[in-house]
Amino acid sequence: MFLTRTEYDRGVNTFSPEGRLFQVEYAIEAIKLGSTAIGLKTKDGIVLAVEKRITSPLLEPSSVEKIMEIDEHIGCAMSGLIADARTLVEHARVETQNHRFSYGEPMAVESTTQALCDLALRFGEGDEESMSRPFGVSLLIAGHDENGPSLYYTDPSGTFWQCNAKAIGSGSEGADSSLQEEYNKEISLAEAETIALSILKQVMEEKVTPSNVDIAKVAPTFHLYSPSEVEAVINRL
Amino acid sequence: MFLTRTEYDRGVNTFSPEGRLFQVEYAIEAIKLGSTAIGLKTKDGIVLAVEKRITSPLLEPSSVEKIMEIDEHIGCAMSGLIADARTLVEHARVETQNHRFSYGEPMAVESTTQALCDLALRFGEGDEESMSRPFGVSLLIAGHDENGPSLYYTDPSGTFWQCNAKAIGSGSEGADSSLQEEYNKEISLAEAETIALSILKQVMEEKVTPSNVDIAKVAPTFHLYSPSEVEAVINRL
Amino acid sequence: MFLTRTEYDRGVNTFSPEGRLFQVEYAIEAIKLGSTAIGLKTKDGIVLAVEKRITSPLLEPSSVEKIMEIDEHIGCAMSGLIADARTLVEHARVETQNHRFSYGEPMAVESTTQALCDLALRFGEGDEESMSRPFGVSLLIAGHDENGPSLYYTDPSGTFWQCNAKAIGSGSEGADSSLQEEYNKEISLAEAETIALSILKQVMEEKVTPSNVDIAKVAPTFHLYSPSEVEAVINRL
Amino acid sequence: MFLTRTEYDRGVNTFSPEGRLFQVEYAIEAIKLGSTAIGLKTKDGIVLAVEKRITSPLLEPSSVEKIMEIDEHIGCAMSGLIADARTLVEHARVETQNHRFSYGEPMAVESTTQALCDLALRFGEGDEESMSRPFGVSLLIAGHDENGPSLYYTDPSGTFWQCNAKAIGSGSEGADSSLQEEYNKEISLAEAETIALSILKQVMEEKVTPSNVDIAKVAPTFHLYSPSEVEAVINRL
Amino acid sequence: MFLTRTEYDRGVNTFSPEGRLFQVEYAIEAIKLGSTAIGLKTKDGIVLAVEKRITSPLLEPSSVEKIMEIDEHIGCAMSGLIADARTLVEHARVETQNHRFSYGEPMAVESTTQALCDLALRFGEGDEESMSRPFGVSLLIAGHDENGPSLYYTDPSGTFWQCNAKAIGSGSEGADSSLQEEYNKEISLAEAETIALSILKQVMEEKVTPSNVDIAKVAPTFHLYSPSEVEAVINRL
Amino acid sequence: MFLTRTEYDRGVNTFSPEGRLFQVEYAIEAIKLGSTAIGLKTKDGIVLAVEKRITSPLLEPSSVEKIMEIDEHIGCAMSGLIADARTLVEHARVETQNHRFSYGEPMAVESTTQALCDLALRFGEGDEESMSRPFGVSLLIAGHDENGPSLYYTDPSGTFWQCNAKAIGSGSEGADSSLQEEYNKEISLAEAETIALSILKQVMEEKVTPSNVDIAKVAPTFHLYSPSEVEAVINRL
Amino acid sequence: MFLTRTEYDRGVNTFSPEGRLFQVEYAIEAIKLGSTAIGLKTKDGIVLAVEKRITSPLLEPSSVEKIMEIDEHIGCAMSGLIADARTLVEHARVETQNHRFSYGEPMAVESTTQALCDLALRFGEGDEESMSRPFGVSLLIAGHDENGPSLYYTDPSGTFWQCNAKAIGSGSEGADSSLQEEYNKEISLAEAETIALSILKQVMEEKVTPSNVDIAKVAPTFHLYSPSEVEAVINRL
Repeated sequence: MFLTRTEYDRGVNTFSPEGRLFQVEYAIEAIKLGSTAIGLKTKDGIVLAVEKRITSPLLEPSSVEKIMEIDEHIGCAMSGLIADARTLVEHARVETQNHRFSYGEPMAVESTTQALCDLALRFGEGDEESMSRPFGVSLLIAGHDENGPSLYYTDPSGTFWQCNAKAIGSGSEGADSSLQEEYNKEISLAEAETIALSILKQVMEEKVTPSNVDIAKVAPTFHLYSPSEVEAVINRL
Repeated sequence: MFLTRTEYDRGVNTFSPEGRLFQVEYAIEAIKLGSTAIGLKTKDGIVLAVEKRITSPLLEPSSVEKIMEIDEHIGCAMSGLIADARTLVEHARVETQNHRFSYGEPMAVESTTQALCDLALRFGEGDEESMSRPFGVSLLIAGHDENGPSLYYTDPSGTFWQCNAKAIGSGSEGADSSLQEEYNKEISLAEAETIALSILKQVMEEKVTPSNVDIAKVAPTFHLYSPSEVEAVINRL
Repeated sequence: MFLTRTEYDRGVNTFSPEGRLFQVEYAIEAIKLGSTAIGLKTKDGIVLAVEKRITSPLLEPSSVEKIMEIDEHIGCAMSGLIADARTLVEHARVETQNHRFSYGEPMAVESTTQALCDLALRFGEGDEESMSRPFGVSLLIAGHDENGPSLYYTDPSGTFWQCNAKAIGSGSEGADSSLQEEYNKEISLAEAETIALSILKQVMEEKVTPSNVDIAKVAPTFHLYSPSEVEAVINRL
Repeated sequence: MFLTRTEYDRGVNTFSPEGRLFQVEYAIEAIKLGSTAIGLKTKDGIVLAVEKRITSPLLEPSSVEKIMEIDEHIGCAMSGLIADARTLVEHARVETQNHRFSYGEPMAVESTTQALCDLALRFGEGDEESMSRPFGVSLLIAGHDENGPSLYYTDPSGTFWQCNAKAIGSGSEGADSSLQEEYNKEISLAEAETIALSILKQVMEEKVTPSNVDIAKVAPTFHLYSPSEVEAVINRL
Repeated sequence: MFLTRTEYDRGVNTFSPEGRLFQVEYAIEAIKLGSTAIGLKTKDGIVLAVEKRITSPLLEPSSVEKIMEIDEHIGCAMSGLIADARTLVEHARVETQNHRFSYGEPMAVESTTQALCDLALRFGEGDEESMSRPFGVSLLIAGHDENGPSLYYTDPSGTFWQCNAKAIGSGSEGADSSLQEEYNKEISLAEAETIALSILKQVMEEKVTPSNVDIAKVAPTFHLYSPSEVEAVINRL
Repeated sequence: MFLTRTEYDRGVNTFSPEGRLFQVEYAIEAIKLGSTAIGLKTKDGIVLAVEKRITSPLLEPSSVEKIMEIDEHIGCAMSGLIADARTLVEHARVETQNHRFSYGEPMAVESTTQALCDLALRFGEGDEESMSRPFGVSLLIAGHDENGPSLYYTDPSGTFWQCNAKAIGSGSEGADSSLQEEYNKEISLAEAETIALSILKQVMEEKVTPSNVDIAKVAPTFHLYSPSEVEAVINRL
Repeated sequence: MFLTRTEYDRGVNTFSPEGRLFQVEYAIEAIKLGSTAIGLKTKDGIVLAVEKRITSPLLEPSSVEKIMEIDEHIGCAMSGLIADARTLVEHARVETQNHRFSYGEPMAVESTTQALCDLALRFGEGDEESMSRPFGVSLLIAGHDENGPSLYYTDPSGTFWQCNAKAIGSGSEGADSSLQEEYNKEISLAEAETIALSILKQVMEEKVTPSNVDIAKVAPTFHLYSPSEVEAVINRL
């Protein structure tokens, strides 16, 4: 008596008879096609690590930015559609700058995450800032504010969760299992770096090099590792 | 001669030949997929209790907020799409703050509930605040005003009812039966806490711990229980 | 050569080849699913009586409002989608308040009814106040103005009629037959109360109690009966 | 090679391959379902007569208004969707009042008719005053201005014609034939009343009474007959 | 490999694979259903003649206006949807009045024709003045300005041509052939009247009378013939 | 696995799986149905020549304008939908007048062409000036500015090219071949006139006369040939 | 259970069940139909080279612009729809001019690229500057700023990458392979010119001449080679 699911999945923002929103679920699929990113929280700060897919030796590795600074105390790693992620990050940069200007202090990490998710939820409504489809991207947002370090995970539905450790992208299933085995709250930043890279190594199809991974930390300010700093972590594996 | 129901259910806001609005009914289905939440009214105040689905040990339990404060005299528990619920709660927070600012007194609980439902009813109309689909969320709104404590239940159609006790979410059918057996108007706040948790325990698939349930009361102000306060209630079971 | 009717019934506001507007007819079906409401005009005023469907013993009966005051000289009983009815009633309240403010006198009952119907007719036009579908509700509007008491009946097409007595909702067919047998213009208010409740009793599937019916009169001002006043009428049956 | 007509008839405002506008033609069908109305021009003024369908003895006959005053020198009879007719009449009332205010004299009957038809033609264009479908109503507009009495007939396409006599609604075919036999330009107002009622009598399925017909004249001002005045005409038959 | 033409003809403003605009072509069909109109240019002025379809003897022939004045030096005959034609004529009247007011001289005939066609071309664009479908009407525009008399023919595509003689409407094919035989540039106004009526006579299904044809001339000002003036031309045949 | 092309060609502005825009390609087909136009560049200026399709001897040949002046130093010949061409030319006239007013000098020919193409590219975007479909017209734009004479060719995609010689319309394939044989950069204006007319003569189905062709030159100002000037060129053939 | 991919590919901005955006992928196909363009970075600057498809000997080769200057320090080569590319380039020119005006210094190459991609991402949103479909064009953006020379590659999804060397268009697959073999970071500008032309020569179907290729460099300012400069490079092959 019901249509098969296939009839409901093209309406941009329509419930199926089981109460599902298929366009959001398909956007989540877009992320499963993306490169893998990993975040870990330690008491000293957050570590982010991402796989960079360098499809051609003629590409400039440093221009494949999958970790971006939002404000000096917040950065994020992304998986999915890069152009969508840039739009969200740009929105967050404006929000955090406005907050600093209005209140003379950095924006809280959760408020920044909420602001990103508000934009993500508003798709299909035709107003000026929102998209006509869900954003096809997940973010790992790492920050440090008066509550100490925190790590948030957002998905295309505009929902967010606070995590101790989390992997996103095509290798996330295996990486999340590894994280549950290897992670505990007491690890140091250096251990977090090692765990992140060793898990990336398992899910990547090629050898890990300073060209095809990026690492960053927020401890307590955002810092993107130079190739030699990445090299140092690789050598510790 | 009529089309089967399946042909009417994708129009966002269209009646079927039997006079039904399928998109609203499907949004109600979304709530049946949600986590269970329970509210009970006592003469001393309202108790809210929710199941938190912690899908990974790496998730921060306190970031899974399924009970939220609206104003100091009103809080709510939710089931369904969390991002939708946040939009409604944010709208209610603005309304109650505006009311305090304009009239110098807290907004009545029923007026706050009506304001939430007005927004929920307006979906599909393309104006600035409304959604392009029904909100996929039910709320239990607990408050205390000059009429004493009150508990409201809202659904995606924008309709609300005042209740003495109510369960929403995937376990609501069983929980509502248990409430009808165990609830009476004379119970104390402490008894309400125990009933709420014992019913949640029946419908949850795992052991009840301070990490996977939240409890709050409005008596007469909103208070979200700390893990140790939750622990104390668990120990009373 | 014509399509069967089924092809025309999903256009929100489109004529079928026979000149019918199916979405309006389907909204009328929504009312046939609603609870029964009855209105009777006497020379001393109007009596309204409604069935309240109390689906759970935990629901607060007084919060199931199916009779609402519009202004002190006008009230209405409703059948169909409650949230739609609230929107119409709220619109009428604003209109009558504006009229009092502008002209220093109460708004005529027919003008108030016309204002409600104007809003109902405008569905599908995308402007700010109108809905994107017909309102799925019928109203019995009872009022008292310089022409004495009057009773109006509105349907989702935005049409209204003045009546001496009228039933709406799922039991309206049987109730209308009973009204034609039992009603005459000379009955007293007390007789009208008794007729209304005795007819409701026939169409309701359960015993009539002060919890599951509401009675109100406009004679000449709106008054919703207290449970004990309802009890008194029940006892007269 | 062409689609059958059925594929063109749901576009609100689209030509078929034969150059037809089906939605307008279907709206004209809506009028064929309506009650019958008749207008006759005499040198002393216009007579309008309508069948009122009193579907229930509990309905107030005087509230079934199928003849309405537009200005003191113009009135109209209608057939089709009453709520649509009220919108057109209200528009015409505003136009005639504005004209009196701006120019200090009554608006000409043809200008008033043109103003009504302009609104009727504009359907489907999404601006503020127009409807999203054709108006499902025909009007017989009777007026008296410096050119003497005149009678206009409008249809849902926004076209109008001046007539000496005209019937609209479900009985219009038979009534028009009778009019062609019985009408001549020299008849008196009283004779016009008798012809109108005798023709209505033929097309109505029940006995003609002061409750189920309305008569009005514009001679030179609009006057709706009281039940006793209608009774007097019936007695002359 | 291509769809048959039938799939392209409902898009209001879409090209078919052969580069055709079907909605415009179908609007042109609407004119082939219309009454016949004829225009002839003489060195002394233009003659317009139209068939009036008087569908009922009760219709006032003078109210079936198929020749209308635009300004004192311009008039037009129409075939197709009368209400559409009235909208175009009203637009042209405003344009010519504005021109007189701004420049103190009459608007040129070609400029007036261009202004009409601009409006006709803009259908489907949703702005305030344009229609949501092509205008289903053709006009013969007769005028006299500093270049002497001129006759223009417009079609629903918004294209116009200057002609010496032209017929439009259901009888246009036969009438155009007759015009090519009988017309030459040296005819007098009186001869043009006779040719126009004799051709109309051939294409009309009934006897030509002062009631079922209209004649007008622009020589150099617009003049619509009185019934007796038409009678005189008929008698000359 | 792909749909056949037929499914993509009705979306006004949608890519097919092969990356094609069918509506634009179909608009180009519209031009292949149009009359033939030819342009040739000489060092002394540009010659434009067009076929005029005089469908009836009653049409005024001079009113079939297929060569139009844009500014005194720019003119254009067109093939396709005349009403579309008039809109583009009117737009270009406003642009060139504004340029003269703002800068006190004539607008460059390429800038004028670019302005026309900007408008052509914007179809389907719903803003005020653009069309809801591609413009179904090609233009040959001839001009003379500080770079000397130049000839541009535009198509419905909003693309333009500078040419030495070019034919458009139904006879363009044969005409282009002839141009490649007969054209060289050293020809005089008179030779260009002769080549243009001799090629038109080959592609036209009837005898070339001053009534059914138009010739213009920009050398260095726009000049449309009088019938006797055209006659002179014909006689030279 | 899923629809085949074909059902998802016409929604302008809709995810398929696998998380793909087909309209963007089809726009990318449009580029595979385009002419080939190549860019190479050397330490002294960037070299761009493009194939110009001269479809007719009567076309002015210099008017087929496939390399355009954006600002004096930035230029780009394009493949795909030329009119789309012009819109993007015009947008970039405005942005770089505004930047110079506001900050008194040239805009960074990456910021310029980002501004272009922001516009490309916004398709389908109906605001003033964006298109209703993806831009069907890829660009190679060559620039020189305080970070030295840089080369960016953009695609229709609004994504961009920094490259050392890159080919786009119909011959890009073969050209990219050749680039990987022949390119290294130490080549001189002259070597880059030779490599670019020799690769173009392989993918073009006709002999390379100064008429059918364009070469430009940004070293450090934009310079488009004259035919004789191109000739010189051809002679070096």
